[in-house]
Amino acid sequence: METTAILTKDEFLKHWLGHRTLTRRTIEKFPEKELFTYSIGGMRPFAELVMELLSIAEPGLRGIVERNDQSYDHDLKLTTKDALLEKWDADTPKIIELFNQIPEEDFHITHNLFGEYNFPIYSNILYFVDNEIHHRAQGYVYLRALGIEPPFFWDRP
Amino acid sequence: METTAILTKDEFLKHWLGHRTLTRRTIEKFPEKELFTYSIGGMRPFAELVMELLSIAEPGLRGIVERNDQSYDHDLKLTTKDALLEKWDADTPKIIELFNQIPEEDFHITHNLFGEYNFPIYSNILYFVDNEIHHRAQGYVYLRALGIEPPFFWDRP
Repeated sequence: METTAILTKDEFLKHWLGHRTLTRRTIEKFPEKELFTYSIGGMRPFAELVMELLSIAEPGLRGIVERNDQSYDHDLKLTTKDALLEKWDADTPKIIELFNQIPEEDFHITHNLFGEYNFPIYSNILYFVDNEIHHRAQGYVYLRALGIEPPFFWDRP
Repeated sequence: METTAILTKDEFLKHWLGHRTLTRRTIEKFPEKELFTYSIGGMRPFAELVMELLSIAEPGLRGIVERNDQSYDHDLKLTTKDALLEKWDADTPKIIELFNQIPEEDFHITHNLFGEYNFPIYSNILYFVDNEIHHRAQGYVYLRALGIEPPFFWDRP
């Protein structure tokens, strides 16, 4: 599919990494206790939403690169804010390395993500980012309800 | 920037339109009154968030196509759910038409969006979608708090 790219592979990665920085900052804003216990309307606490994100981004990309369709495991058993942030930081360089291994030509190949979601790779990866924005925004509401100002949405260096 | 596109212009538009369908469904789920009055933690009611989205997507794209840097106006004075949905539906074909007018080569040109955000056009447009996901997710929390099940996040035909 030779064409003028509206968005290069590298630009997309930078965009994603900007979102990851913002999500990290959102985690940091939570008090330790509320991170694991506070929720609204029967939803999961923010720590659980973050564990979902962790169990999708790096493992999902790894599945794409290794062409495996192993299922995800959201139950990461991380029980402190520091443990969540450490895992977040440990995954970022792995995400960069894995993403860079996917050749441009492969983004339109179909991959059965986690053995369940059989879509083109570009669509799988867009989902990772969309899902991160979606759950982080829910964290924003939790923070507001707790009287804490969330990070600026547009501040993604 | 001739390269193999990880995502074509048309794929990106379809992705955005899928999100618009889901946001429309989210608006529909709200009871009339709560759409305009319910909020958490001092945030704006969902109708106001939707008016922000309406005042960004079509006007922002128009600014890009016409190369104008007019400011936005979030205060659309739509006061019923039907009026919001009507405006949403009226904007969708305009968005398609405007988006299709932007040549691939122009996505890396810098545009001073709304006279304030001076970034490449691809970045402006990614922002439109990210911001929609972000605010819609806040609507999801409002719905959960109201005891209403939001639409499935991944259901974006």
